[in-house]
Order: sequence, then structure tokens, then C-alpha cells
Amino acid sequence: MLARGVTNLSDAYSGRLFTFAGGRDGLWRVVLNRPVSGEPLASVDRLAVLMGDARVEARWLLRGVTSYERYVTADEKRSLLAAQPPIGRPEATCAALIPIRKSAEWWQLPQDARRAVLEESSHHIATGLKYLPAIARRLHHGHDLGEPFDFLTWFEFAPRDRNAFEDLVGALRATEEWQYVEREVDLRLERG
Amino acid sequence: MLARGVTNLSDAYSGRLFTFAGGRDGLWRVVLNRPVSGEPLASVDRLAVLMGDARVEARWLLRGVTSYERYVTADEKRSLLAAQPPIGRPEATCAALIPIRKSAEWWQLPQDARRAVLEESSHHIATGLKYLPAIARRLHHGHDLGEPFDFLTWFEFAPRDRNAFEDLVGALRATEEWQYVEREVDLRLERG
Repeated sequence: MLARGVTNLSDAYSGRLFTFAGGRDGLWRVVLNRPVSGEPLASVDRLAVLMGDARVEARWLLRGVTSYERYVTADEKRSLLAAQPPIGRPEATCAALIPIRKSAEWWQLPQDARRAVLEESSHHIATGLKYLPAIARRLHHGHDLGEPFDFLTWFEFAPRDRNAFEDLVGALRATEEWQYVEREVDLRLERG
Repeated sequence: MLARGVTNLSDAYSGRLFTFAGGRDGLWRVVLNRPVSGEPLASVDRLAVLMGDARVEARWLLRGVTSYERYVTADEKRSLLAAQPPIGRPEATCAALIPIRKSAEWWQLPQDARRAVLEESSHHIATGLKYLPAIARRLHHGHDLGEPFDFLTWFEFAPRDRNAFEDLVGALRATEEWQYVEREVDLRLERG
């Protein structure tokens, strides 16, 4: 008897796993595709955000899984839960997909050192909180899937919050944490 | 152009991903297969420990990936690195594979609460340290792979350290952390 294949996923896991397909199809029109660090992603017209391990025809497929919190404390979690908006608000017609890979040095740091860089030095969680409820965010992990990016962060916001979003990504890129980022692409999208 | 399939893994990832194949083949003879909590694993004669995403003929296949430390602090990491033996010592002819799934309640806890249960209350890391260098250990993560088990822990030890290993697993099962374990199987193995 052969064990189940990888595509035969449980419902619970399919609800956590997302595939970002860059190509000719999808709800989102690509308005910017800028390599910030390292290798770029091939140019595409549209992006589809698909649930599960979708093997669709595309120029590239990036996968990531939503997961438990690696750094957020109980107090931070309460603040986030109180303020964070859902994905899919009708007015949020702007989006960004920011795939990131961190260095081997980052992954070799113990938990307390990574937390210290991420929050005590870089204020990553506090910075994100400042832009709630304007900017919705969903984090997908790829490191343990063997993906080319460790993180795929998906953001959604209304056109009026475009400047706020620039401030947010600018603040994060200026941090100590970002010194561990060895590959980053900045994809901006608009619905329709 | 279709993006790469799941079986086309990078060398770096193939070196972190392990498949445990229960069936008729493999270096390890199964001497015990005991369900501790929840559903058992089907009875098998032998276990093969394979690198990468091995799709071999087997009764069951369990996959997990070695990864960065979720809880270990810098001090604890130094102590572990100083004392932990490698996998594959010639004298370590006994092994155990302990697949575990934790509850949804565990995964919803924030990072600081999980750390507090795991170490400050349950002394998981300190308990493991007490049994070094006798008992070698390798932890594989399955939660973000959609596997039936969140963790596959592999232990290797010499026959003279069998009692020490019983003490170790007994101590861990008596902890607060283990109240979050909803499925656990205890497989014991001997080489040859």
C-alpha cells in the first residue's frame, strides 16, 4: 500500500497553504515588480492567489503556509487581534506581495536572539501595529517547505492608504532585522 | 512554463527533509509500536530512515524537516552544542521514533506562553540536556508540511542507556507540556 501523495492534503492544511501564481491570469494586475535584494522574479502581468497546493500553468509559483506565531507575545497578540482587519475588504483594491529570504546566519540564531533583533531592536511587530486597521496583512512561511523564499507577506489596503504602506515598508527596511534579508522582491498589485 | 514540481527539491532542503518509512524494509527492526495517545500507527516489521521526500513502497510514510530552533535560547544552545552526540554512532544500536501531534490549543498560544510551558514549567530542554551525551536526538517538524504529526523525534542510544531513555521519556510525559499532546506513538527499534 502506498501512502498518500503530497497533493492529497487535509482540509485543515489546504486552508493554511497558499499558492501565489504569477502569469497571465488572476484577480490582481501587477503594477510593480522590483527586486530589492538579490535575484528578481520574472516579469508577469497578473497574479492569482490560490488556496492549497495549486499546480496551475504560470510563469512562477510561490507557496507558503500560514502558521503559529514565532515571536508574538500574549500582549502583542491581543493588540493585533483587536485591530487587524480581514483580508478581502471591498475597498482594499491595492495589494503588495513581498517575498523575502533571510540569510543562513539569521536561521542559526537562537530564538531569544532572533526575537531581540526582530522586536526589541527593530520593532517589527510594533511598526505593523501602527498601521492597523488600514493595512491588512497575512504572513506565509516557506522556509520549512523548501521554497525559494522564507516568507511571503501579503498586504491589502485602500488607495488612500498607499502612502501609509510606503512608510511601513520603508521603516522595516531601515531596521537591523533587514540586514539579515538576502533576497527581497516588491510586487505591487491592483484589483481588476 | 510550469514551475518546478514538489519532488524537485534543492540540495539544501533535501538534506533537511527526512522520510520515515514503516514496512518490510530498512535498517531498523521494530521491537515496540505502542500508541500512547490517540490513533495508533499500523504494525510494521522494519523502519527505513530516508533523506528527502522519498516515495517508497511502505505501509506508512511520515515526513518531517529539521529546522531552526523555536524555543532554545543562546545559553541553552551553547550547552546543547557542547554535549550533544551525532546521529549514527556505531554503538548506538537502539533507537526510538516518537511521533507527536499537539492540540489546536497549543498552536494558538503566543510564543512566550508556549516557551513558558515548554521550559519554565516543563523543563523540556533542561531534561534533554541531563541525558547528554548518552542519547542522541534529531527533531523533525511536520506541522507546516500538513503531516499527521507535528513532530517526529528520533533518538539513538547504546543498549546500556535503555533505562536512561525510559527515564527521559517518562519525565517528559509527566509535564504540563504533555497535556497538549493529543496523539503520540512510541516506536522502539534495534539495528540489524
